[in-house]
Amino acid sequence: MVGSPAATASAAVPEVVLEANVDDLDPRLWPGVLSALMEGGASDAWLTPILMKKGRPAHTLSVLARPDLVAELERVVLAHTTTIGLRRYAVDKVALPRETAEVEVYGETVRVKLARLDGEVVTATPEYDDVARVAAAKGLPERVVMDAARRSLVE
Amino acid sequence: MVGSPAATASAAVPEVVLEANVDDLDPRLWPGVLSALMEGGASDAWLTPILMKKGRPAHTLSVLARPDLVAELERVVLAHTTTIGLRRYAVDKVALPRETAEVEVYGETVRVKLARLDGEVVTATPEYDDVARVAAAKGLPERVVMDAARRSLVE
Amino acid sequence: MVGSPAATASAAVPEVVLEANVDDLDPRLWPGVLSALMEGGASDAWLTPILMKKGRPAHTLSVLARPDLVAELERVVLAHTTTIGLRRYAVDKVALPRETAEVEVYGETVRVKLARLDGEVVTATPEYDDVARVAAAKGLPERVVMDAARRSLVE
Amino acid sequence: MVGSPAATASAAVPEVVLEANVDDLDPRLWPGVLSALMEGGASDAWLTPILMKKGRPAHTLSVLARPDLVAELERVVLAHTTTIGLRRYAVDKVALPRETAEVEVYGETVRVKLARLDGEVVTATPEYDDVARVAAAKGLPERVVMDAARRSLVE
Amino acid sequence: MVGSPAATASAAVPEVVLEANVDDLDPRLWPGVLSALMEGGASDAWLTPILMKKGRPAHTLSVLARPDLVAELERVVLAHTTTIGLRRYAVDKVALPRETAEVEVYGETVRVKLARLDGEVVTATPEYDDVARVAAAKGLPERVVMDAARRSLVE
Amino acid sequence: MVGSPAATASAAVPEVVLEANVDDLDPRLWPGVLSALMEGGASDAWLTPILMKKGRPAHTLSVLARPDLVAELERVVLAHTTTIGLRRYAVDKVALPRETAEVEVYGETVRVKLARLDGEVVTATPEYDDVARVAAAKGLPERVVMDAARRSLVE
Repeated sequence: MVGSPAATASAAVPEVVLEANVDDLDPRLWPGVLSALMEGGASDAWLTPILMKKGRPAHTLSVLARPDLVAELERVVLAHTTTIGLRRYAVDKVALPRETAEVEVYGETVRVKLARLDGEVVTATPEYDDVARVAAAKGLPERVVMDAARRSLVE
Repeated sequence: MVGSPAATASAAVPEVVLEANVDDLDPRLWPGVLSALMEGGASDAWLTPILMKKGRPAHTLSVLARPDLVAELERVVLAHTTTIGLRRYAVDKVALPRETAEVEVYGETVRVKLARLDGEVVTATPEYDDVARVAAAKGLPERVVMDAARRSLVE
Repeated sequence: MVGSPAATASAAVPEVVLEANVDDLDPRLWPGVLSALMEGGASDAWLTPILMKKGRPAHTLSVLARPDLVAELERVVLAHTTTIGLRRYAVDKVALPRETAEVEVYGETVRVKLARLDGEVVTATPEYDDVARVAAAKGLPERVVMDAARRSLVE
Repeated sequence: MVGSPAATASAAVPEVVLEANVDDLDPRLWPGVLSALMEGGASDAWLTPILMKKGRPAHTLSVLARPDLVAELERVVLAHTTTIGLRRYAVDKVALPRETAEVEVYGETVRVKLARLDGEVVTATPEYDDVARVAAAKGLPERVVMDAARRSLVE
Repeated sequence: MVGSPAATASAAVPEVVLEANVDDLDPRLWPGVLSALMEGGASDAWLTPILMKKGRPAHTLSVLARPDLVAELERVVLAHTTTIGLRRYAVDKVALPRETAEVEVYGETVRVKLARLDGEVVTATPEYDDVARVAAAKGLPERVVMDAARRSLVE
Repeated sequence: MVGSPAATASAAVPEVVLEANVDDLDPRLWPGVLSALMEGGASDAWLTPILMKKGRPAHTLSVLARPDLVAELERVVLAHTTTIGLRRYAVDKVALPRETAEVEVYGETVRVKLARLDGEVVTATPEYDDVARVAAAKGLPERVVMDAARRSLVE
């Protein structure tokens, strides 16, 4: 474990980052690659735009994963992209204790993710999926529902 | 070694990533920096656009290298860029077994890089340099030759 | 320590990289987050634009820090952004020995950061803050002062 | 109309580009904004990452639209984002005549978009949505289906 | 004027966009360039990362300006950057009528920018500069003050 | 012509910008596309990374061209990329009068591009191609030669 964890965060857990630089995949396939990785159990998966040798615009695919899922997620990377290799390194992951609250917005329930630091709520974020559901049901812009959910968070 | 490698990938080998954040290099020099690193034996070298303190657009230079080349490649970074420091960390690198096939396109030979997962070909990528050579020789767009090379891959 | 350090660089020192992917922060707050981290003692702090699951444009926040500052800087990340978790990994940091020279530009002093490799100066970079000060005082574009400072570096 | 159109392209038609720089929207809402614009009839809608004053990472939202839809799409931009203004300019749009072909892949039909220049097919692109449907139905990576569809295009 | 303006927006006014692709400026100077343009009266100024010929990472500098300021702002671009040329095109700019409200946060006043569409408030955004001032005065993260200001907006 | 040109710049000349959003080209082909456009007479050609609908990372290809070359360059875009359409708009291009000077660096000649504003030199940029040639001939990093060329510019 690197350094000492924030006193208020949950204990650090070991995870692994997998990375591959990919310069030859049909870009339309990237969203499906990220979905396949999340469905395969990845803690997170994302793309970073990079510039490679020979002036090529490319992407680094990164996957954060629990150690027991690494072998399987490596197979997803190798099957779903054109890369023939990847690199990996160990990280420590820390997370604040989190809870879920609920607020009423336009007569519907929206979950709010709460995180505490030293016992005090430091983050209160309405769940996007709930906001999108309410927005679609009410014919409102998602932004209007998100703003309303944030305003409902008055202590 | 982090996690266990995919059963079908070659054994993991240790490599090192070198990184430096650079905010004061004449941007025209970047392609030459990447070339110098590849010529110096880097396994890969690339740039990631970042936003640094004080609102500065900058780049992270990343170099993937075999451990025995690290000292020499550090010197390339320090001589060819304006950075006065860098960071490094160890990674495990895994790669699929690869072969080279050849296809005929417009009467010319184009190599195709094949990679196997569980014995089955999962990636078949025409070599760009060959495609570019044929395109130049025939006066065709590279895309036309690349498409033709992909179509020639019918089993 | 990974590999052997460049003979001419100072000995490697251990540092830690903290990273968090953030997709829900008001983007106007990012410059203040980087400032808070630098004021908290970070060796460096920067943002990398990424593409996350569900098609979301987001940023990876990265912080380079001495091990003894990790716990405090984690708290800054958790308090100043909306993330509820982060990952960290150890790196070795190497830096060239550096000196500060001074040049006269438009009658004002501008510091120049010098770095040596094998005893020879490989980098001589005028300090931006000094350049900005002189430019403001003289009513000149910063570029004009920076160019003049570079030209003053003739051995 | 600017310049003369390529002889082989269909006649140019007037469209309008709407643009707004946005630095204060919850980034999770961007995919929904693009969807709302496409559903509203936009010819295209996309985001470009930019760096604004005060060191702020932000996005330019761009919308390509037929002139008769401009007023309505402006309302979508103003309702679905936090911007309070936008700019617009006229463009000429040219497009190659296009046809749809079909190929059989894994026993399923995949449409292929064909475009001709001077009567000759210059682009043959399998439809992503069809590829994704077949991949899901067959439990295959989308890439495998896309490659198979491309190989089926042999004249 | 392109298309007809949204009925609820103020009348369109003509502005001009100036653009230059720059690949050889010391990147540390970019924030000062944007500041000089804003001080020179630009309606907005921003950077877009691009990839130019020969594999060079570069930036497009964009400036939005009132027609009467174009000649002066062109001089700022030419004096403060290394470009020796630029391009410009006319745009129509539309903006929602806006008002300023005030909320009390931690005993301090924070202005809120309101915009109306069809008479209804669609956007209510706390001013960043006020939030930053209160955060600095109270020793709080800017995010905490921004969230509090948003929550104070309950109708 | 939009606005009045800077008094010191050469008269504005009309040019055209061609743009296409491309989400399905093998990224390795992009450098060749830019080269083909420059060889076809484009005044400039560049790529901007964008985020399109359905979460797709893509690029806008932009081409700046003289009006008499538009038809031919449109054909290059349509033949060398996968796009089946593009948009174009007129711009005014202004440029400072420029001269070429020469400096001696490591016994070799390096051209320097000079531009004047109000008769005074505001930009003096060593030609990259000359710097690269000297660096290769002398076995020096390009940066060392570029710095030396800049220092030789002392009036």
